[in-house]
Amino acid sequence: MITALGLFAAFLTTGALVPQVVKTMRTKSTGDLSLGMYLMMFTGTLCWLLYGFLNKDIPIISANIVASVFSSIILYFKVVGMKKKMN
Amino acid sequence: MITALGLFAAFLTTGALVPQVVKTMRTKSTGDLSLGMYLMMFTGTLCWLLYGFLNKDIPIISANIVASVFSSIILYFKVVGMKKKMN
Repeated sequence: MITALGLFAAFLTTGALVPQVVKTMRTKSTGDLSLGMYLMMFTGTLCWLLYGFLNKDIPIISANIVASVFSSIILYFKVVGMKKKMN
Repeated sequence: MITALGLFAAFLTTGALVPQVVKTMRTKSTGDLSLGMYLMMFTGTLCWLLYGFLNKDIPIISANIVASVFSSIILYFKVVGMKKKMN
C-alpha cells in the first residue's frame, strides 16, 4: 500500500514533465520557462541516473531515463528560443 | 560517496523549481507554463510527503515540503494568469 503510494507519487512527479513537453513542442514558445530550472533538472536527472546505476536501483534508473529525456527536450526548445531571440 | 551523489541529485531536482519561482514572481507571465505540469507536480509532492510521513523518512519529507511550497507558488501564479486572460 505504501509502496503503491510511492510509485504513484513517482509517476506524478516524473510524468509532470509530459504536459510541459507537449505544450512546448506545440507552441515552441519558451519565454516564460526558466533556463536555470531545466539546466538544474537535466543535470539532476543525470546525477540520479548515475546514482541509480551505482546502486543497481531499477525504479530510480527507469524514472530518470524518462525524466532526463523529457527535460532535455524542454531544454533544447528553450535554448533554440533564446538563440532566435538574440538573432 | 554514493549517498553524497544522491543528496546532490535531490538538491538539483528539488532546487530546480527555485529559478522558475523567481522568474515567475518577477515577470508574473505564465503563458508558456503548463497547468497540467504544475497540477501533477503539486499533487505528486503531496503524495511523496504522505509517503515520507508513513515511512518516517526525513529526507523525503523535507525535500517534498520544499518542493510542494515551490510548485504551489508557480501553480498560484499560473491560475491567476489564466483567470486574468479569461476576464
